[in-house]
Amino acid sequence: MSQNNPNIDKAKLTEDLLDAVAKGDLEQISALFSHLVPEEIAELLEATPSKDRQVLWQAIPTDQQGEILTHTNEEVRANLLTTMESHEIAGLAEELETDDIVDIAQSLKPEEQEALLSSLDEQERTAVETALSFPEDTAGGLMSTDFISVRADIALDVVLRYLRQLGSLPASTTTLFVRDRDDHYVGTLKITDLLVHDGETLVEELVNTHIPAVRAYLPAKTVAHLFEKNDLISAPVVNDNNQILGRITIDDVVDIIREEAEHAQMASAGLDEDEDIFAPARRAAKRRTFWLGINLLTAIFASIVIGLFDASIEKVVALAVLMPIIASMGGIAGTQTATIVIRALATGKLAKSNSRSLLIKETTVGLFNGLIWAILTGTAVLLWFQDAALSAIFATAMLINLIAAAFAGAMIPLVLQRLKIDPALASGLMLTTVTDSLGFFVFLGLATIVLL
Amino acid sequence: MSQNNPNIDKAKLTEDLLDAVAKGDLEQISALFSHLVPEEIAELLEATPSKDRQVLWQAIPTDQQGEILTHTNEEVRANLLTTMESHEIAGLAEELETDDIVDIAQSLKPEEQEALLSSLDEQERTAVETALSFPEDTAGGLMSTDFISVRADIALDVVLRYLRQLGSLPASTTTLFVRDRDDHYVGTLKITDLLVHDGETLVEELVNTHIPAVRAYLPAKTVAHLFEKNDLISAPVVNDNNQILGRITIDDVVDIIREEAEHAQMASAGLDEDEDIFAPARRAAKRRTFWLGINLLTAIFASIVIGLFDASIEKVVALAVLMPIIASMGGIAGTQTATIVIRALATGKLAKSNSRSLLIKETTVGLFNGLIWAILTGTAVLLWFQDAALSAIFATAMLINLIAAAFAGAMIPLVLQRLKIDPALASGLMLTTVTDSLGFFVFLGLATIVLL
Repeated sequence: MSQNNPNIDKAKLTEDLLDAVAKGDLEQISALFSHLVPEEIAELLEATPSKDRQVLWQAIPTDQQGEILTHTNEEVRANLLTTMESHEIAGLAEELETDDIVDIAQSLKPEEQEALLSSLDEQERTAVETALSFPEDTAGGLMSTDFISVRADIALDVVLRYLRQLGSLPASTTTLFVRDRDDHYVGTLKITDLLVHDGETLVEELVNTHIPAVRAYLPAKTVAHLFEKNDLISAPVVNDNNQILGRITIDDVVDIIREEAEHAQMASAGLDEDEDIFAPARRAAKRRTFWLGINLLTAIFASIVIGLFDASIEKVVALAVLMPIIASMGGIAGTQTATIVIRALATGKLAKSNSRSLLIKETTVGLFNGLIWAILTGTAVLLWFQDAALSAIFATAMLINLIAAAFAGAMIPLVLQRLKIDPALASGLMLTTVTDSLGFFVFLGLATIVLL
Repeated sequence: MSQNNPNIDKAKLTEDLLDAVAKGDLEQISALFSHLVPEEIAELLEATPSKDRQVLWQAIPTDQQGEILTHTNEEVRANLLTTMESHEIAGLAEELETDDIVDIAQSLKPEEQEALLSSLDEQERTAVETALSFPEDTAGGLMSTDFISVRADIALDVVLRYLRQLGSLPASTTTLFVRDRDDHYVGTLKITDLLVHDGETLVEELVNTHIPAVRAYLPAKTVAHLFEKNDLISAPVVNDNNQILGRITIDDVVDIIREEAEHAQMASAGLDEDEDIFAPARRAAKRRTFWLGINLLTAIFASIVIGLFDASIEKVVALAVLMPIIASMGGIAGTQTATIVIRALATGKLAKSNSRSLLIKETTVGLFNGLIWAILTGTAVLLWFQDAALSAIFATAMLINLIAAAFAGAMIPLVLQRLKIDPALASGLMLTTVTDSLGFFVFLGLATIVLL
C-alpha cells in the first residue's frame, strides 16, 4: 500500500497534530504533516481555532502554502492571507496552476493582487487577468488556462510529436480540445484514441463533437449540473465567438457541487457556506444577530395574534398550555414539505407544469396527517383536561393547521423562486410566521367563539 | 457548437415535454427526448407525477432504459422496475457496464435479480456477483470491474500493443493500474506517460505509488472524501490481500458527494435523501407521521412545563402572550450553532481536541447575542406593557435562553456523534425540546417568583 493510505486512522493523526500545536512542538508538527495531502492540511487549518491556526501555518513549508490555500474556504483563506507580506504572497504563486492563482488573487485586496500579478511571467499574468475579468462564480472565473488544443485537420502522428515535445500534460487530461483553422472549438479528442488508432488518421475523423463547450459567463452552478449530467472529467470554456479560453476540470466542480448542496442547509439558518467555524465570536455574533432580528419580527407577530385573545386565555388557561403544540406540529409538517420543494427546485426538478401536481400531493399528505393527528391529539386532550369542547376545538385547529402548513410549505418556496428570492434563505422564516400565527389564531379564535 | 448545447434553455424543453406527456403525444415526446442525455431524462422522470411517469417511460427506447435507470434515485428506480417483466429487466443489462448493472440489481427482488444475472455472460455475471457481495454503500458495492491493469515489469511498448489489441478503453480511463507478479496492486500509470516516454521504458520506472488503493469494505462516504482530498479521477478497489477487484470513477463519487451533503438538510426534517417527490400521498404521509409523532412528544413536554405555571398565567396573561418569543429566539439561535457543528462533524473538522474551543466560542456568541437581544426586547416589552418588572424578567429569560441555546446547539450534536447517533437526524428535535422547555420554564418561573 502507498504511504497515502486511506484506511488508516486520520482522526488519530488530527488529534496528534492539534496536540502538537497546543504544545507548540514545531518538529512534531512537521513530522505529522508529511502524512497529509494539501487538502487535508487545509481541512485541518479550518478545524483549528484562530490562535493555533497561526502556529500551524508557520510550520508549513512555504512551497506548500500556495496549494494548501487553494483548498481552504474563502474566509479562512482571507484570514491567513492578511497575516502575510506582499512578497510572501507573490512567492505562493510559483508552484501553482493558473486557476489556483486566480483563487488566491480573488481573496486579495487590490494592491496585493497587483503585487501578486506582477510576480508572474507574461503568459501566466495574461491567463490570470483573463480569469479575473470574469465573476468568481462563473465558468470564466473557475477555468484554468492549462489546456492543450490541436487543429482538426492534422494527423495523429503530428499530435503525438507535439505532445512528446511538451513532455508533460496538465493534470486530469483525458481529452485534447480540437479547433478549426479559425480557432473555433470543434470538439474533443480522447487521449486514448491516440494510442489505439493509426498515426495517419486525421484528428477530425475521431473528434467527438458531443462534448459541450461552456460559455465563459455560464454560472458555476450550471457548469456543475452539466458535469454531473454528462459525467464529464473536463470541459472547454469558450468566448462568444466559440474560441477556447480555458478548461474546467471535475476537481473544481466537486467543490461547487458540495457547496451548492450544503447551501440550503446553511441558508435556512441564515448562515454563509464559507463561514469560518472559528471566526472570532464577536464577528460571528454580528452576522447571526441580523437573522435573530428578522426572526424576532415573526415571533412578535405571533405574540400580537395571541394578544388579541388575552381575555379568552385569562378565562381558560388551558389554551395557553396547549397552543404551542398546534404551532409546533404545523411548523414541523410545513418544514418537511418545504425541504422537499426547496431541494426539488435546487436540482431543477420543479417547473411550472409539475408544480400543481406537487401542490396537490403535498396538500393531500397534509390532509392525511392532519386527520391522524387531530384524532390522536384530540383524544389525548380529552383525557388530560376532561373537556369535550376543548378537545374538539384542539383537534379542529390541528387539522386546519397541518393542511395549511403543507400548502404553505409547498407554495412559499415556489412563489419565492418565481420572485427570484432564494427559497432556501427565506422559506423557513415565512413558513414559521404562517404556521405559528395561523395556529394560534385558529385555536384561540375557535375557543373564543365556542367556549366563551 | 455541439447539439448538446448547455447554454440553451433546458427549462423550456422540460415544459414542452411535460406538456407532450399531458397530451399523450408520443411522437412529440420522442422528438424532444433526442435533445436530452440519459441523466436529464432520469431527472425528468423524477420530476414527473407517477401517472405521467409511466407514459414517459413507455416512450423511451428500450435500449436506453437501462442507462436512464442507473441515474434515477432509488425509489423512482424501484417504482419503474416493478412495472417491468423479468425478460424486459434482463434486456436492460445489455448496454450497461457492470457497475450500472449492479445498481439495477440492488433494486430488484431476489427472483428478478436471479433472472437478470442469468442473462449475463460468464464474465459479467461473476463481476456483478462480486460487487453484489459487498454492501451497497461500500467501495465494493460502488466499483465497476471495467479496468485495465498491467504488470510493473513490462515495457511501455508492450503496454501499447496490448491497448491497441483491446481497441477501446473504458470511459474515464486516465490511468492504468499496475500490479506486481503476484497480482498485488503497486500503483498507477498515467495514460499520458505512454505518449511522452520512450517505448523501452519499463512501467515500474514511471509508476505512481501515491495513488491510494481503496479497501472493498471502505464506506462510500469515506471513498468520496478520499476522491475530494486527492483530486482523483479514478481509484483501484482492492481486497484484503491488496489484489485489484475493480475501479471506482469520479462520476459515481459525485452522486455520493451530493447525497451526503444533502443528507443533513433532509435528515433534519425526518426525510430520506432518496425520497420520490411524487410518491403516493398516503405513502409519504405514513413516513412523515412518525416524525410528527416524535415532535409531538417534545411539544407535550413543553406544554407540561407551561402547565406548571397555569396559576401565574391566569393572573398575568401577558406571560402567555410573550412566552413564545423567548422559545422562538432560543430555537433559532440554537439551530444556527447546531447547523455549523453538524456540518463541521460531517466534514471531519471537529475532533475531541478542538471541540472545547468551539463550545467556548459558540457560548460566547450566545452571550453577545443574548445581551444584545435582552436589551432590545426588554425595552420593547417595557414600551408595550409599561411594566418594569415584566420587562426585566423577559430580558433575563431571553439572555439565559440564548446562552443555553448556543451551548445546547454545540453540545447536542457533539454528544450524539459520540454516542454514534446521526447528529443530523436527532439534533433539531432535542434542541427544540431544550430551548422551548427551558425558555418557558425560566420565563414563567422567574415571573412566578417576582410578580406573584
